[in-house]
Amino acid sequence: MKPYDPNYATRVRASFEKQRLMTTLGAVLDVVEPGRVDIRLPFREDLTQQHGFLHAGAIASVADSACGYAALSLMPADAGVLSIEFKCNLLAPAMGDGIVARGSVIRAGKTGMVCRADVFSIMNGEEKLVAAMQGTMMVARDRGLTD
Amino acid sequence: MKPYDPNYATRVRASFEKQRLMTTLGAVLDVVEPGRVDIRLPFREDLTQQHGFLHAGAIASVADSACGYAALSLMPADAGVLSIEFKCNLLAPAMGDGIVARGSVIRAGKTGMVCRADVFSIMNGEEKLVAAMQGTMMVARDRGLTD
Amino acid sequence: MKPYDPNYATRVRASFEKQRLMTTLGAVLDVVEPGRVDIRLPFREDLTQQHGFLHAGAIASVADSACGYAALSLMPADAGVLSIEFKCNLLAPAMGDGIVARGSVIRAGKTGMVCRADVFSIMNGEEKLVAAMQGTMMVARDRGLTD
Amino acid sequence: MKPYDPNYATRVRASFEKQRLMTTLGAVLDVVEPGRVDIRLPFREDLTQQHGFLHAGAIASVADSACGYAALSLMPADAGVLSIEFKCNLLAPAMGDGIVARGSVIRAGKTGMVCRADVFSIMNGEEKLVAAMQGTMMVARDRGLTD
Repeated sequence: MKPYDPNYATRVRASFEKQRLMTTLGAVLDVVEPGRVDIRLPFREDLTQQHGFLHAGAIASVADSACGYAALSLMPADAGVLSIEFKCNLLAPAMGDGIVARGSVIRAGKTGMVCRADVFSIMNGEEKLVAAMQGTMMVARDRGLTD
Repeated sequence: MKPYDPNYATRVRASFEKQRLMTTLGAVLDVVEPGRVDIRLPFREDLTQQHGFLHAGAIASVADSACGYAALSLMPADAGVLSIEFKCNLLAPAMGDGIVARGSVIRAGKTGMVCRADVFSIMNGEEKLVAAMQGTMMVARDRGLTD
Repeated sequence: MKPYDPNYATRVRASFEKQRLMTTLGAVLDVVEPGRVDIRLPFREDLTQQHGFLHAGAIASVADSACGYAALSLMPADAGVLSIEFKCNLLAPAMGDGIVARGSVIRAGKTGMVCRADVFSIMNGEEKLVAAMQGTMMVARDRGLTD
Repeated sequence: MKPYDPNYATRVRASFEKQRLMTTLGAVLDVVEPGRVDIRLPFREDLTQQHGFLHAGAIASVADSACGYAALSLMPADAGVLSIEFKCNLLAPAMGDGIVARGSVIRAGKTGMVCRADVFSIMNGEEKLVAAMQGTMMVARDRGLTD
């Protein structure tokens, strides 16, 4: 996929830095390519649910940001990104060293982009699919919301 | 809806206390009734996305827990709850003093429960619908996962 | 909810008549109110899946149309409606005399409307919730798509 | 992915034949591989919505069956398949000669399987992604529901 804005990676990284929740969770922006973004979340006990697994909300948070920034990477420079909706299937308990959410755009429209994210847990270097997201990101223009 | 376990409220509150992510986010368990749970999340700047609104992941986190505990309130005492899947629509930017996620069970099955959560932002005492979730919670038995 | 167009009911009914799939399935438009539409689908053996229940696709079809027309009832007269996305939980096998999908708008925006539909099976006059949908409908303008 | 049942293809095809809705819509079962099923739906005017595009419900019907049979292909011989839930994003109007829904299993569990389907329209031999589904299929055992 071809980005409108040649500075897409700088813009995505700058916007990610402003997502305070990502810092709070300890998430790290990894790969940024046109229509493709990876976010890593190292395991932390203060992100767990009652059985000691990563909380589905923590997983959804990084998957949502991975989808959002995959979408932003294909947007014009004057656009901002907002989540419209997402659906997340939890496939297996997320344990181990952490997770990586790999977001990608499957349909880049003028007003909205449909994305998927596959979320893998990492344990001893092995990846296992633990969650799958599908959602829609808004191409926000003329709303005073730039990224 | 009639709970199997008369001590449902104690069990829900004890399990919520173990959800470390809820503490990390600052979420508070409010109402607990059979098939109905409210969770409040006061606004905090370290939970925001890049434009200063509450991050969709923070919203989904409390909505997911509200659905999960609404489901747990109707489960037998030896069951644990796990999120299978959820879908979240973001309806308006979440600003103001915080949000409240009102989860309820719409179908209580033996192996799974389908729930909805309506999430309202609160500003100057006024509530506004900002997100809507629909999802499935697993009735986990014989897995060594009690709540 | 207040409709923009006082002729909303006529417009909704005329558009429903043009949905050839509804005729093919035998669906009947019942209630039309501002932000609220009911569609009935009498049971027919040629709409079933392999066990003799109504196929999830038939259920989703009428639920989607119920959401779409609930949304259209609140749109300006020059707008058309298109489905953007929906999520459907199947709660119980749909058997009996037929189903009724009750669609309603939970958020009416300028460019999109978020809707829910509850689908009930009807057997001997008793209603039972068999499916639940949540989805987004586009307010399509300037696309040459009027309803 | 490895099928439990070496006769999976025969079983999938026999079950598809029993889905009366598929016959009513004119859908054709095409590829059947372990964890992978394609279903084609030739365009027919009596399957359209009000603007003359294929109705989202017709698209969801074949996508749901493609997911369900992708799941069934990996199930033991004594299991039946039921749809639990699915989410469908409509990406572009479905026009042309018809559509093909390509379903695949992304997580094969003992009690449920998570699947995705990509739906393409076909026009003059060119394929275009028009819809994307993500859903959960139940591995139904001991319910008197074989396929």
